[in-house]
Amino acid sequence: MPRQDLEYPKEAHNTVKRYNHLASYTLRTIHTIINTTPLLHISFNTTPSSPFPSTIPMIGQMGSFSHPSSSLSDVLDLYIHGYISARLTNLTRSSPGLPVTISASTVDGLLLSLTPFSHGYNYRSAVLFGHATVVTDPAEKLYAMELITNKVVPNRWSESRSPPTPGEMAATAVMKVKIDTGSAKVRTGPPKDDKVDLDSDEVRERVWVGTVPVYTVIGEPVAAEYNLVKEVPNTLAEWRKEANQDAKEYAELAAVKDLAPKKKKEDD
Amino acid sequence: MPRQDLEYPKEAHNTVKRYNHLASYTLRTIHTIINTTPLLHISFNTTPSSPFPSTIPMIGQMGSFSHPSSSLSDVLDLYIHGYISARLTNLTRSSPGLPVTISASTVDGLLLSLTPFSHGYNYRSAVLFGHATVVTDPAEKLYAMELITNKVVPNRWSESRSPPTPGEMAATAVMKVKIDTGSAKVRTGPPKDDKVDLDSDEVRERVWVGTVPVYTVIGEPVAAEYNLVKEVPNTLAEWRKEANQDAKEYAELAAVKDLAPKKKKEDD
Repeated sequence: MPRQDLEYPKEAHNTVKRYNHLASYTLRTIHTIINTTPLLHISFNTTPSSPFPSTIPMIGQMGSFSHPSSSLSDVLDLYIHGYISARLTNLTRSSPGLPVTISASTVDGLLLSLTPFSHGYNYRSAVLFGHATVVTDPAEKLYAMELITNKVVPNRWSESRSPPTPGEMAATAVMKVKIDTGSAKVRTGPPKDDKVDLDSDEVRERVWVGTVPVYTVIGEPVAAEYNLVKEVPNTLAEWRKEANQDAKEYAELAAVKDLAPKKKKEDD
Repeated sequence: MPRQDLEYPKEAHNTVKRYNHLASYTLRTIHTIINTTPLLHISFNTTPSSPFPSTIPMIGQMGSFSHPSSSLSDVLDLYIHGYISARLTNLTRSSPGLPVTISASTVDGLLLSLTPFSHGYNYRSAVLFGHATVVTDPAEKLYAMELITNKVVPNRWSESRSPPTPGEMAATAVMKVKIDTGSAKVRTGPPKDDKVDLDSDEVRERVWVGTVPVYTVIGEPVAAEYNLVKEVPNTLAEWRKEANQDAKEYAELAAVKDLAPKKKKEDD
């Protein structure tokens, strides 16, 4: 399956310089991290007079309107929505093709080594660089709204009052980011220490070393006061169970085993 | 306690324009979100030739070297470290006072409303704008390394092999961000729907509505193969228990109750 191996091109702004044995440029790895991280951070420059990038947390999902059956290994666009500042939407309307940087990170464990120097996290992080436009085609907008709603909870679009009313459509801004390039970093496995500490019985007999798995739990659904439906939807109940089991298993596996993409010789 | 009410100034780049009833400018709210979010996203511009901000996930903590006993309501600096790209460190060395944007976000719940239009998350997010320099004073660097290590697990600095060796000190870059301004947004409470859907028995009898609490769990510590200490440190065991209880309680409370800072009249 050669499609599994599609990689983003390595350019100056997406090449991982430090810890590059943890880096991956495959679309599948990067798109999976983006789609499984609930909140993405979107950074962009506003006016030439401000030296600070703006950063906004938003809900976004990778998809392909022209080829909806595409897999995560294919070339995809990012659709974003929710908590959209008027500023970002207006800026994108007035400057179509606005350059944006999208990042997504998840902590999977705490690394407790012998020395503070080697403390840190097991984590997955991805960054994408692309150009944003406001989606104007109603069919594409509807496709994106369904994609994004189903990111919150699978199948939620068809299990809630859809399609949106004309008023809701008009009040919703959806942006599409055409991706230039991107990269991912994944750190897994136990902590690492230097020989000098590993050789010291005094240090090793005093300092506990290991990994503490960290994972997200989707809790017990709480009905709103105005809810009239007795049972929590089956899709939600099943998805919660699976998502919670997967998250715990991944963090516990990452605590003991190096799962990171293997370093290629030429990256050394 | 007037110190609890210190606010960052509202400037063009930090003023929350949308959903501004969720916004807060108090130092305490913003600093608390930064310090309780494991990974921060640091955005900055690299070269004038790249239109894309760079964004890097890093570990950072608010503190004050000149007044170490300061509270989260006081004026503080952000110290960052870990996963520092050579690029960011070098850039800050060659351009002291590099403008950086720091963001931190946590999802606290899924909001399942009657219509997809009103779906979203309960969340806490903060953004800070400031100028970064590389810390060169060894005493301040040591202060910051202790602060950051104790963010991973409380008291870990003194419970591991500290202080760092001269070699470790030389190999570690710590950056200090002097904060210009910042803001926070906090969304809590049940989902909200429009009157037209609330008035429709057909919709309300078909669609389950409510909140699904989301929280992070600090799992069961896993000793590394080279660990010799029998018992997990008491500080870690106690902190895990408390952190897990607090996280679950907050998400469950946020699912049913509006805890967001109250809107000020002039912000309407």
